[in-house]
Amino acid sequence: MSSSNPIHGSPTSSRVHTSIPETSSAIDRSLPEFPAANPIDEDNYFKTHKPPNYLSSISKDVADFINFHHLSKRKIVLVTSGGTTVPLENNTVRFIDNFSAGTRGATSAEYFLESNYAVIFLHREFSLLPYSRHYSHTTNCFLDYMIEKDGKVQVNDSYQKEMLLVLKKHKFIHENNLLLKIPFTTVHQYLFTLKLIAQELSVIGSNALFYLAAAVSDFFLPSSRIPEHKIQSQETVGGKLVVDLEPVPKFLSRLVDSWAPISMIVSFKLETDNEILIKKARGALKRYNHQLVIGNLLQSRKIEVVFVTNDSEKWIKLSSDQINNNIDIESLIIPEVIKQHSLLIEEKKKLGL
Amino acid sequence: MSSSNPIHGSPTSSRVHTSIPETSSAIDRSLPEFPAANPIDEDNYFKTHKPPNYLSSISKDVADFINFHHLSKRKIVLVTSGGTTVPLENNTVRFIDNFSAGTRGATSAEYFLESNYAVIFLHREFSLLPYSRHYSHTTNCFLDYMIEKDGKVQVNDSYQKEMLLVLKKHKFIHENNLLLKIPFTTVHQYLFTLKLIAQELSVIGSNALFYLAAAVSDFFLPSSRIPEHKIQSQETVGGKLVVDLEPVPKFLSRLVDSWAPISMIVSFKLETDNEILIKKARGALKRYNHQLVIGNLLQSRKIEVVFVTNDSEKWIKLSSDQINNNIDIESLIIPEVIKQHSLLIEEKKKLGL
Repeated sequence: MSSSNPIHGSPTSSRVHTSIPETSSAIDRSLPEFPAANPIDEDNYFKTHKPPNYLSSISKDVADFINFHHLSKRKIVLVTSGGTTVPLENNTVRFIDNFSAGTRGATSAEYFLESNYAVIFLHREFSLLPYSRHYSHTTNCFLDYMIEKDGKVQVNDSYQKEMLLVLKKHKFIHENNLLLKIPFTTVHQYLFTLKLIAQELSVIGSNALFYLAAAVSDFFLPSSRIPEHKIQSQETVGGKLVVDLEPVPKFLSRLVDSWAPISMIVSFKLETDNEILIKKARGALKRYNHQLVIGNLLQSRKIEVVFVTNDSEKWIKLSSDQINNNIDIESLIIPEVIKQHSLLIEEKKKLGL
Repeated sequence: MSSSNPIHGSPTSSRVHTSIPETSSAIDRSLPEFPAANPIDEDNYFKTHKPPNYLSSISKDVADFINFHHLSKRKIVLVTSGGTTVPLENNTVRFIDNFSAGTRGATSAEYFLESNYAVIFLHREFSLLPYSRHYSHTTNCFLDYMIEKDGKVQVNDSYQKEMLLVLKKHKFIHENNLLLKIPFTTVHQYLFTLKLIAQELSVIGSNALFYLAAAVSDFFLPSSRIPEHKIQSQETVGGKLVVDLEPVPKFLSRLVDSWAPISMIVSFKLETDNEILIKKARGALKRYNHQLVIGNLLQSRKIEVVFVTNDSEKWIKLSSDQINNNIDIESLIIPEVIKQHSLLIEEKKKLGL
């Protein structure tokens, strides 16, 4: 399925786009890399923060979904998508956010579904979703695809073919309970929900795949500091606002070691500088000891990515023909990920896992 | 037109919602009120910051739009909608954002259009838009309204009536060039674009109405500080991130005094505490010397608002019948605003303006 081009969009969409970050300043290299979280960090974080109050309802949905697909031996992928927010102290109207529309996650989920995976889609609320992303209300206003004919709303003939394809897939996925959508907004909600889903998915062992495409905040404001040390952590000095944030514990290592130890875990590394991309990706592999980092550059992420493992790196690129035909790079990424997942399942089987 | 209820949404939408701020902590009262901007602030801001590079193309679109409607003596309203962002220093992937889906602005724009105003819709890119908001890809997935019949995509009969109404209005508005959509993302883009549009609108004098529903950031990072004083303004101390922000100049007074001095200006005041709402609204009127503040509470903003002028306050509330029938509060707000705009036009006419 070809992607809709958000730059052109539908007839009534704006020509000007304001939200794309400049490559030259998009990633701050003055910030240090933080160490991986250890069991004590985990205890601290999950003990000192209150779980979201809706978590038990999600827990049941996830358990039902996993059970349903486990019975039919279907593999399950958790796709995370979109950016997490960090509410500023005592002020949830204002928050720190990460640039991400959720395109990578939503598109990847579609290709996993087409390859017979069941998908748990842990996404930023109001970010792009599988299938409906093709008719997002802002880049492609769906009303522009419709006409009035004989007093009825009808789909313009020239869009029928593509829309029918999308609709069929959308209906099939929902009728067969293949997609479970779970929203998050804050990094706090994300971490609690990720841990919950990971622990529930651990029951299917190597048949679970983690595909972590969400843009997770680096910094947060510990809830312990909100009531007690208000003045220290947020000061207004001469009209200025000073916000003092702590690094988010790097829980990927906990996912690998403890929450879902025999599942395959894929993370993403977004950079702007080609020179350091591989090094950064390998650094993440070393720190967290998982299977695969998919490296990508902000400026070329829709046309090429690099698969980095401990002993290999493999570029996956769209050909110019594919670019001209609006082929999604995810249509190349997902089969490659699935191939590696199948190899890992075979390995674990040999080990009796 | 009744509003779609985002809590229920379409059959495949999630039951859980994660992005609604808690009323008890949504607005930080420890922050001081900043004084209105004076001409020197204005000079400083617009001299020390580079205008967005697309501004000249917008300038032409706005001028054409104003000219087109001025010839037919149509009144024009500028509706601002959605939240502005503040990119963190040297890092546009991370930014401070304000909670706002753009519902108030998008819905209000529809009712202005139905009252024969032309609308310049200055909105956060990817926030809700007039008409298409009814079928947003996330709360009401439009694919859920469609069925496959005789090998074609068709609109489900039970949704035909409402969708036809929306489609007719959408087509009419675009065929008659009644809606000009201009996006922003950062507070910087917002301020430059607001100034530009205000100055262009000043040529139609009192026939212009400013309806400022956007959630504008209180703080920003001056661009002057980005290259020179990196260490001072963003420090990582022991892994912590310290962000040091300046208050955004309060340009509403410049809009009133200098950019569009004889137009009607309506601003919004969002609070969480009913006790201080009127006082805060009147404080804004005093500071900026404009005509009308519409006060609203985070927890009840969809069912009641209060019109505050220097010598009056008037609550506008949906009846329980109207609430049950999903009537938009904006269907009551806009006629009231228009009434006051007409009175102001009469007044200005008597003064020969």
